[in-house]
Amino acid sequence: MITVSQALAHLFDLVAPLPVEEVPLISASGRVLARDVRAGRDQPPFAASSMDGYALKAEEVERDAMFKVIGEAAAGHRFEGQVGAGQAVRIFTGAPIPEGANFVLLQEDASRRSDVITITGDPGSKANIRPAGGDFTAGTVMSAPRRLTPADVALLASMNIAQVPVTRQPVVAILSTGDELVMPGEEPGPDQIIASNSFGLHAMLRDLGALPRLLPIARDTMASLHTAFELAADADLIVTIGGASVGDHDLVATAAKQIGLQQSFYKVAMRPGKPLMAGQLGDAAMIGLPGNPVSAMVCGHVFLAPMVRTLLGLEHKSAPSKKAMLAEDIKANGGREHYMRAIVRDGAVTVFDNQDSSLLTVLSQANALLVRPPHDPARKAGDSLSYLPI
Amino acid sequence: MITVSQALAHLFDLVAPLPVEEVPLISASGRVLARDVRAGRDQPPFAASSMDGYALKAEEVERDAMFKVIGEAAAGHRFEGQVGAGQAVRIFTGAPIPEGANFVLLQEDASRRSDVITITGDPGSKANIRPAGGDFTAGTVMSAPRRLTPADVALLASMNIAQVPVTRQPVVAILSTGDELVMPGEEPGPDQIIASNSFGLHAMLRDLGALPRLLPIARDTMASLHTAFELAADADLIVTIGGASVGDHDLVATAAKQIGLQQSFYKVAMRPGKPLMAGQLGDAAMIGLPGNPVSAMVCGHVFLAPMVRTLLGLEHKSAPSKKAMLAEDIKANGGREHYMRAIVRDGAVTVFDNQDSSLLTVLSQANALLVRPPHDPARKAGDSLSYLPI
Repeated sequence: MITVSQALAHLFDLVAPLPVEEVPLISASGRVLARDVRAGRDQPPFAASSMDGYALKAEEVERDAMFKVIGEAAAGHRFEGQVGAGQAVRIFTGAPIPEGANFVLLQEDASRRSDVITITGDPGSKANIRPAGGDFTAGTVMSAPRRLTPADVALLASMNIAQVPVTRQPVVAILSTGDELVMPGEEPGPDQIIASNSFGLHAMLRDLGALPRLLPIARDTMASLHTAFELAADADLIVTIGGASVGDHDLVATAAKQIGLQQSFYKVAMRPGKPLMAGQLGDAAMIGLPGNPVSAMVCGHVFLAPMVRTLLGLEHKSAPSKKAMLAEDIKANGGREHYMRAIVRDGAVTVFDNQDSSLLTVLSQANALLVRPPHDPARKAGDSLSYLPI
Repeated sequence: MITVSQALAHLFDLVAPLPVEEVPLISASGRVLARDVRAGRDQPPFAASSMDGYALKAEEVERDAMFKVIGEAAAGHRFEGQVGAGQAVRIFTGAPIPEGANFVLLQEDASRRSDVITITGDPGSKANIRPAGGDFTAGTVMSAPRRLTPADVALLASMNIAQVPVTRQPVVAILSTGDELVMPGEEPGPDQIIASNSFGLHAMLRDLGALPRLLPIARDTMASLHTAFELAADADLIVTIGGASVGDHDLVATAAKQIGLQQSFYKVAMRPGKPLMAGQLGDAAMIGLPGNPVSAMVCGHVFLAPMVRTLLGLEHKSAPSKKAMLAEDIKANGGREHYMRAIVRDGAVTVFDNQDSSLLTVLSQANALLVRPPHDPARKAGDSLSYLPI
């Protein structure tokens, strides 16, 4: 058996960033920027008023000063003339500042009678002008790689990037195996259960930015497994669930090897999830997850997520962990790295009493996996430990 | 002007949870469970082996004991007979425990010769059996409302819930207004800028679980605004951007009132984002956001997100805030609630120097909005303050 970090190193050898494609800006959020992009223009492209008021000369601003209003500037409609001494231009938020003016008097600090205004308030010294290029200038770079947020999308829009170069989304085939499985909505026989891991992993992969594809459940025969692998032929990553153990009924590894799997490792020293294998199958990476409901989902967080991030061109490392303080004492860990289902609330982490790898009810309540290294000693309430948010 | 919490109270009066619809389980992740659902069966539905090994009687387990192997049980394939004294059944992970057996001897603790096994290791006292109903029993409830996670989807699958009752996604029409705006990819005139808020809000609304719909940019004329509002007629929520200020060129409120807007408030004492209005327009709620790029996005987090959550049937309250320690001293706040762009890293929050509401570059780097109440005094490094994660 190998360690989790050894397994991750092997997995990273199996995947590399996918090619670049361009998508319309409206579809770019959540995608990974694949190439640096540059602003096509300054923002703002001109000095602009940040308030509604009157554009005039700062040198002339004093209480009771009077100005003749010679025109108007609105957003999208510049005043074409020049603002001279004793003159003002009615101006609205976002409008270009007219030539000759360098100050915007707030409308609440002026009283207007016909085309003459008088400064009635205390205008202060703030010019209420946004300088040209104050947000960014032409050529400003947004650096790749970067998972694009809604704020990034707004910024790309104002840079006038209508088509965005992003990494192609990885196609991930999900293959559940086992005679005991039926699909949700079917009536299971007395010895059968409902396939659940494949649905949970499908949702997880979609959240990660992949394009998951659920294959029909494969039965425990070579013929059924070979048919299923054929359906996965165009995937970037093939995830099998179940059948990767050493029991005589675990046929997945054998079937995969018959069609050319180059196995890179088998069995990882972790809980939950010991039976885990991986390798190269044709052009795709393949990873075999254990069939226990919780093991499959935990292995999804620990192994699948970093693989998908690598395929997307993001960081090439294990899932990012955070720190929290233990709320209660916990016992020493055994020889395998243990990912304990836990709840983090207000910076304190509490592990669930029952860590059996079959309990989806516990996983569904958890929002964290507390990471225990092999032979981690007993820990006291108040100790700071690492966890993966889930 | 009213406070942020007064504004939120008005906004909550404008929205109510949308009707329930059923979606296939494969599409349920991220949706909001609208009605309690109940497990159709026990999980596991039968006592099952948690390991590969031999099922036999616990009373007979001792070193060097021998057993005759009388059959096999695999996942999906029960052994139909009875396990008697001195007998064992070869069993695999997930298989039903045969009648008469109450212990699974791990295969590594046995040596087998033909159809006889001998206990060679120390089997310990753990039975390696998952009891029937150990995860959940028939009738176990998943409670609504709840935003469904991947783990929830796995749990729903194993409960055999193939169709999931969820709240309908709110249709949100996004209407940018202003003669100064052009769409990304267009060539702006000298007085024009690129519409960016609508794209950022579109992405934000999608993340919130809404179905955003971008309308064509409305020009600063009554005719253009009326046409745009007609296009929004079937929306649950109409979001206008820009044109909600008091300047003569801000026509949105006037246009909306002409077609029946029941205005519930106008202007909120906050930074960024003062010009903000809301009301009821036909069957839809309407909210008017300021046109400054950052103001619109911040108002999206502070006002739109709670409205969408309410439409989805989730909690009826303001955006959830967290606490972090100030990394550096900050000055006293003015009279308006201030949402300062900030970065939270390792529990410490740093605000950006430039808080101007036009700077998308700053917003794009931020991951938090530090919340300052009106007249909040100067704060020292180390003080604990509230922030909204963004």
